Formats: sequence, structure tokens, C-alpha cells
Amino acid sequence: MHRTKVKVLEDVLDANGTLAAANRADFDRHSVTVVNFMSAPGAGKTTLLERALTGLEGVRSAVLEGDVQGSLDADRIASLHVPVTQINTDPGFGGECHLDANMVRSAIPSLPLDEIDLLVIENVGNLVCPAEFRVGEDYRVMVSSVTEGEDKPLKYPLMFRACDLVLVNKVDLLPHLEFDLEKFLHHLDAVHPGVDRLLVSAKTGQGINAWRDWLVTAATREHAGV
Amino acid sequence: MHRTKVKVLEDVLDANGTLAAANRADFDRHSVTVVNFMSAPGAGKTTLLERALTGLEGVRSAVLEGDVQGSLDADRIASLHVPVTQINTDPGFGGECHLDANMVRSAIPSLPLDEIDLLVIENVGNLVCPAEFRVGEDYRVMVSSVTEGEDKPLKYPLMFRACDLVLVNKVDLLPHLEFDLEKFLHHLDAVHPGVDRLLVSAKTGQGINAWRDWLVTAATREHAGV
Repeated sequence: MHRTKVKVLEDVLDANGTLAAANRADFDRHSVTVVNFMSAPGAGKTTLLERALTGLEGVRSAVLEGDVQGSLDADRIASLHVPVTQINTDPGFGGECHLDANMVRSAIPSLPLDEIDLLVIENVGNLVCPAEFRVGEDYRVMVSSVTEGEDKPLKYPLMFRACDLVLVNKVDLLPHLEFDLEKFLHHLDAVHPGVDRLLVSAKTGQGINAWRDWLVTAATREHAGV
Repeated sequence: MHRTKVKVLEDVLDANGTLAAANRADFDRHSVTVVNFMSAPGAGKTTLLERALTGLEGVRSAVLEGDVQGSLDADRIASLHVPVTQINTDPGFGGECHLDANMVRSAIPSLPLDEIDLLVIENVGNLVCPAEFRVGEDYRVMVSSVTEGEDKPLKYPLMFRACDLVLVNKVDLLPHLEFDLEKFLHHLDAVHPGVDRLLVSAKTGQGINAWRDWLVTAATREHAGV
């Protein structure tokens, strides 16, 4: 790659890192645990949030929704009476494909940080750039749906390597797919050995309690630090 | 958005447009029809290509594969004895999330343009940025899998608006999903009224002949122009 381009990209990531640290300081001051929640489009992030945030015992949560356009997901979360703030990325050229620390920073004044223990940031559906931009989170969780194929960890290694938990979603569909779960887990371990993973189905409820428990543990644990 | 950032992005797209036009001139000189093929990760692009390129009567084809890393898809296409060239975008920071005109330009010397009628460029799996960067194509085709939900045209309008054909894939799974096809098509027509669409299943073969016919027609028609 051309040296000028490399330099521009390095500067962008440096600036992002500085803003992410500022976000972290704000979250820490309010003892809020932050989860950056990522996946490909349509992997089921919003539905898995709907399921988990209903019945989070003793943990007060809020959601920051990142989308190119619209507020469809935010409306779904709001209907659960969970505080939700929308970020639209479409002021970028045709729409930015990820959230960055500056976008999250601009939303902080509208977040009820004094009243919550857990903030889930639902990123734009994309398996590439969201993994490159820290936003000040404690944890990164990604969803990989079994309908997407076994090869995804090998094709998008940064995303699978960057996360603390992988939710393998839509396992109710396994009988109807040619998806080889063993092969997927083998690929996952090849790029991120031993990473936590949960097999879940938003439809049947499989694994949802474990996912909810993971969030409760994360929210009540000492902060993980940047 | 900050004025400097807007200016940088405009410059990027201007430079891309110039290179896309140069690519077009090269493709036109060799009478090659070019399809930019896009979707979210795991929507089934490669499988739909495998199905269509087997038995393309009278049309000589090649594939340019765009991936962040690896050559899994290129290996699959090569096994069909279709000429294939791989572009990896990982020299970008963590990997670029799309192909641009310059990446395609760099691959042109390795493409057998004299020996083909149709070039399919399989873009990186992403519903945002690939729609923003023209690469010198005649047509843009996207795949939207029914497992991704009905809301995708509303959430990624630029992609659905930019394309000439939408392949609605994995329709074999409809009996096992809560996907409302009418609602999806309604959303599709809201963002791109009347756009061509085909219901397909790489698994059962539904719609594959129509998809192959579309490619043959595109490849034998007068070029669409930039």
C-alpha cells in the first residue's frame, strides 16, 4: 500500500484510540460496563438483545443503536422499555460501515449513565471495519449465524480474533442446512483458540439463559479495562 | 460532518471514479461485460456463481475474487475450470471492507480479457461500502438471503438502490423461518421500485436457470455503458 495512505490510516486509528480512551474514562466514572456487539447484517443481534435484556436480574441496561439509516432496531428495543439512543452513520459518504469512537462520544450526553450498569452498543452490521475501531468498550461480543457458512472465521479473522464471546446463532436451523458445526468451531479455534462461545437460538430460546448470564457477570465484574 | 472529512471523502470518490472509467475503457476494448456481485457475508454469492457458471452456454467467463484474506472462494471457482484471479484487501488497516477501482485496476493485467465475454467481480461481503465504489462494471447484482430478515432494504438502502438485479437466496429455508417475503418485496420496492428480482435457492436449484439466463443476456447484450 502507498505510504501516504498507510500514514492517513494510522492517523485515523490514533485519533480513534484517543477518543475511545476518553469514552472509557466517562464510562468508568459511572461504573458502566460496555459491550460492543457486532455481526454481519441479519445475523440476529437485535433479536438476541431483545431476548437477553428482558429479565436481566438486578442489572440496569441501555442500548446504543448504530445503523446506516433508520431506527427500526431502536424502536424494537424501546418497546421493551429499555433506554435506547440511535446513531445514524449516513452523514458519511453513502453511510459509514461502522461506529467509531467519535460517533459514540457524540452520543454520550444523551445516555443515562448514572442510571445504568450495562451499555450495549449494537454496531453496524459488518464483519470488517467494526473490529478495527475501538469505541471505549470493556467487551466485544460477536454473533455468527450458522446460515452464513463454516468459513467465516477464516475469511474475517480480525473480527473473530477481536471478540471475547462468539454467539453461534440460529442453531434451530441446523437440521435444514449443510453447515458443519465441528468444522466451524475448528476454524474458530484456528483464529482465536479457546474463545468463549455459546450456541444459541433466538427462536427456540436455546442458550439464551447462558447469554443473559454472561451479560450479568460482565456487568457485575470489576471492569476489564481498556 | 467536519468539512475536511467531507473533502477527503469527495477526493477519494473522485479518484475512484477516474480509475473506474479507465477500467471500463479496458473492458470495452475487449468487449467484456462486467458484473459487480455483492452481498452480506454468507449470503451465498460463491455458491450462486458455482451454479450459474457451470453451463453458461456460449459465454466464456472469468471471476475476480475479492476477500479480506485467503482464497477459499477462488479455490472453489477454480475447481470448475473457470479462470479466477484473487484480490486480497488485507494490506488495508485490518483489511479493506470493499473493492475499489484501483484494486480491480491492479488485477487487470492478470485477467484473460481477450478470451472471455463475461467477468464477474465477487466483492467483499458487506452491504455498505461496496455500493459506494464503482469498479468499472456494467451491472451490479446483489444477493439478499431470506435468513437475513425483511428489513434489510430499509437498513442498507444504498446497496439495494444501486443494483440492477436482486437475487433473493435460500428460499428453500422459508418454511423454517418467520421471514415475510411479501414484506421484504414491499421494502425492496420502497427503496428501488420495480428492480429486477429472482427468487433462488442454490440448494434446490430454484431460479438458477433464470439467473444463468440473466447472465447470458447481460453478456451478449450491447454494453450498458458506465
